[in-house]
Amino acid sequence: MSTKELYEQYRQHLHKIADVNYAAALLQWDQETYMPAGSSNRRAQQLSTLSEIAHELSVQESLGNLLQELSAKTDGQPMEQKNIELSLLAYRKQKKYTADFVRRHSAITSTAFQNWCKARKENNFSLFEKDLDLIVQLKIEEAALLGYEHHPYDALLNDHDRGSSVAQCDVFFAQLKNGLKVLMDTIKTKPAISNDFLHQHFPKEKQWELGMDMLKLMGYDFQRGRKDIAAHPFTINFSSTDVRVTTRIDERDLCNMLFSTIHEGGHALYEQGLLDEYYGLPLGEPASFTVHESQSRLWENNIGKSRKFWEFYYPKLVSIFQDQLAGIELETFYRAINKVEPSLIRTEADEITYHFHVIIRYEIEKALMTGEIKAKDIPKIWKEKYFDYLGIIVDNDDNGCLQDVHWSHGSFGYFSTYSLGTAMAAQLYAAMEKEMGPGDFCYPEKIGKILSWLRENLFIFGKYYNTNECCKKITGENLNVNFLLSYLEKKFLHIYK
Amino acid sequence: MSTKELYEQYRQHLHKIADVNYAAALLQWDQETYMPAGSSNRRAQQLSTLSEIAHELSVQESLGNLLQELSAKTDGQPMEQKNIELSLLAYRKQKKYTADFVRRHSAITSTAFQNWCKARKENNFSLFEKDLDLIVQLKIEEAALLGYEHHPYDALLNDHDRGSSVAQCDVFFAQLKNGLKVLMDTIKTKPAISNDFLHQHFPKEKQWELGMDMLKLMGYDFQRGRKDIAAHPFTINFSSTDVRVTTRIDERDLCNMLFSTIHEGGHALYEQGLLDEYYGLPLGEPASFTVHESQSRLWENNIGKSRKFWEFYYPKLVSIFQDQLAGIELETFYRAINKVEPSLIRTEADEITYHFHVIIRYEIEKALMTGEIKAKDIPKIWKEKYFDYLGIIVDNDDNGCLQDVHWSHGSFGYFSTYSLGTAMAAQLYAAMEKEMGPGDFCYPEKIGKILSWLRENLFIFGKYYNTNECCKKITGENLNVNFLLSYLEKKFLHIYK
Repeated sequence: MSTKELYEQYRQHLHKIADVNYAAALLQWDQETYMPAGSSNRRAQQLSTLSEIAHELSVQESLGNLLQELSAKTDGQPMEQKNIELSLLAYRKQKKYTADFVRRHSAITSTAFQNWCKARKENNFSLFEKDLDLIVQLKIEEAALLGYEHHPYDALLNDHDRGSSVAQCDVFFAQLKNGLKVLMDTIKTKPAISNDFLHQHFPKEKQWELGMDMLKLMGYDFQRGRKDIAAHPFTINFSSTDVRVTTRIDERDLCNMLFSTIHEGGHALYEQGLLDEYYGLPLGEPASFTVHESQSRLWENNIGKSRKFWEFYYPKLVSIFQDQLAGIELETFYRAINKVEPSLIRTEADEITYHFHVIIRYEIEKALMTGEIKAKDIPKIWKEKYFDYLGIIVDNDDNGCLQDVHWSHGSFGYFSTYSLGTAMAAQLYAAMEKEMGPGDFCYPEKIGKILSWLRENLFIFGKYYNTNECCKKITGENLNVNFLLSYLEKKFLHIYK
Repeated sequence: MSTKELYEQYRQHLHKIADVNYAAALLQWDQETYMPAGSSNRRAQQLSTLSEIAHELSVQESLGNLLQELSAKTDGQPMEQKNIELSLLAYRKQKKYTADFVRRHSAITSTAFQNWCKARKENNFSLFEKDLDLIVQLKIEEAALLGYEHHPYDALLNDHDRGSSVAQCDVFFAQLKNGLKVLMDTIKTKPAISNDFLHQHFPKEKQWELGMDMLKLMGYDFQRGRKDIAAHPFTINFSSTDVRVTTRIDERDLCNMLFSTIHEGGHALYEQGLLDEYYGLPLGEPASFTVHESQSRLWENNIGKSRKFWEFYYPKLVSIFQDQLAGIELETFYRAINKVEPSLIRTEADEITYHFHVIIRYEIEKALMTGEIKAKDIPKIWKEKYFDYLGIIVDNDDNGCLQDVHWSHGSFGYFSTYSLGTAMAAQLYAAMEKEMGPGDFCYPEKIGKILSWLRENLFIFGKYYNTNECCKKITGENLNVNFLLSYLEKKFLHIYK
């Protein structure tokens, strides 16, 4: 068979796997948006079956042979060869998972998600504790399957971002912690900023419309996506032609909806920007979790919380919320949305204290992976660390260790990518400023430039480059925490002058 | 292996098939409710892949061997043996379909559905014509695969209702036609009923709430279902614990939403009433399309358009639509919702002219199956038949041959079950009256009795009995059109006295 024919065979097989995985993703989306409560057991079973089928397809010997044969060919197109190379890596990784492990993972996390919902609703961590222990056992098992050199957590960090490890993250977080502490100590000596006016009553319908407008402004394509309500905001896609975001609305907190929508919008733009011609293939997939997060954080913070952006958008916001924002100056608004104050909820945290939320989760996951702590220990440790790092008291688990959905999904090794991605966002932003001048592209009428720049420099390459390679290609150097620290210092010492 | 172990193996395999089919059903539901327009191609591909996988699982040699082995066992439970017997029949039928046929069927119908939507929107049949020809070719191919003795259409009729055939339907429709003509001739001589007040402006939100209330009243369980908006009302399920209905709202026509919601509610109650313990197994499936339709038509007409039901519900309806229904007496309302008048849209037709809509589709499908006519001939034939049977002029295809979604889904042999099911509904209703007294159970406060009766007599048996066996078991005789004719005569000669 010719290389072309073999490649086509490979492409068809990967389409099939993607079809099943995306079908499962739709079942998940539905589970978290519209599914009636009574069908959670059958849905868990259905998801489990689809995972198992996708897994079976991913580890078929015939696929392995095809990939071997194709990777030995030298007459393929370079992009095709890259697809084959990355698919072979993925195949070898998938082969490490047994069908039984995949089925258990799906069944356990699906039930865990239901119990996490219940536990949150009743503010009772114990309803989720057993599930979490089961998940940790799964993750330890997974680390052993995947293999690691130094620390079991390495296997999971590496799975989210190739090359990432405990050693690397420990250094990154230590630098970040030190830099942020200095900044926080300075800010503490300044008068506090009031943001009370952001906690008036902001009606649901108007917030919904504002969220829609933000997504449109960013360039999100509603012909290939939609927005819905869910308990925890997320972005999910079933191809680059169907990328959906969800949001939640708190009528007493405008920023909650606003910045989580922009955040999810950043994720969604990335997925919509991947090339449909590479559907189901590595070059049609995002580079890594860190790169993904760089996109959401770039839009949420570097753009969405910039003064330039609000110089133009603020009058419109005032016209939407006339009663609530009457007499509030732009500068007051800008300072309020950037108020630095230790708080309980990660997704609502300011750009500085945010990373302590991540560090705490990173440390807890690391300790769970070695068996040093168990699920039952988490509420206590959580409270201690929040007091230690942020000086605040966690009064209940709902606002504490139950706040994030990730663990219930079996996502371990994900949280660190939030800070790594934020650092990458600052690095990308610096590159944009270097190329396009200082921040004028944040003006809403020029905002299309950002999307074009990201498309050209990042989206269209899919998984071609890993995180560090992306950074190097676009900015000339590997991921470097100093861009983030400089950006924060400049911005916040100006706000808190 | 023991019978018990073998049976468990069989059950697991059927669960897997059901999981994939129900996942595909969710993708379909999403396609017709929330999916963004831009992803129709990828969705078609995903649906096609799932169909193919479900088909592969349904025709696995190992399943055939298992079924053979189990059907030879004599120590199984009777219900288990019935499951095996029916599964073996289904397996033999599935074996007749090639994987290639299944894939083409899914791909063609998925695209056809998109083009049907476009054709309706632009009122342009030609946008759907080619797809329909492709579908007819598929159906002719399918009939040949399934096999038939006399007429290719027999294969498809039998597929929707085991034992059904052109010969049987020709007789049934001839009797029905004759009986209805006599009735129509009498009604024609009576003064026309006005229902203008039903075509005032009925706001969307209030109609939505009314539909919700109707479903609750019928006993529909919202813990195991939900209602959404779609272009064409339908019911779909992903287990008996997740049965969803859709509705459309026309603000100038109260009856449209009202009776289509009750109709879909009837379908949904049946699916919710199937036993979850038989998930994916024949005894957890509906008996036939005819029996399914008997449930929707029973609720829509025999109950929902009865005087008894409105004696109680009408005051509530007036309180919801005070402006629109002020001064309208119950009797006026009752006569208006039962007004007999030839019209263009099947789903909005009265109980008498309704069957001519079905007969026309039946005749067209029959002619398509022999190649006597082609898709391009349909608009003309449609207009001729509507003028001939109902004396009305079809002014455009949107209100004509494009009105129903069925053909775009590849549903051929379905329409006849609407009339067969309506006849069965009348037969069931007569049995209920015999057992519970004349119609008092239609009073809303007693309406729970109907659901209990249907559960005990019909739902819990799943596919154990076929259509005629169900009729015989419940009413003492096979499906008999005379129950419908007597019911219509009694009701409408009273209304048009």
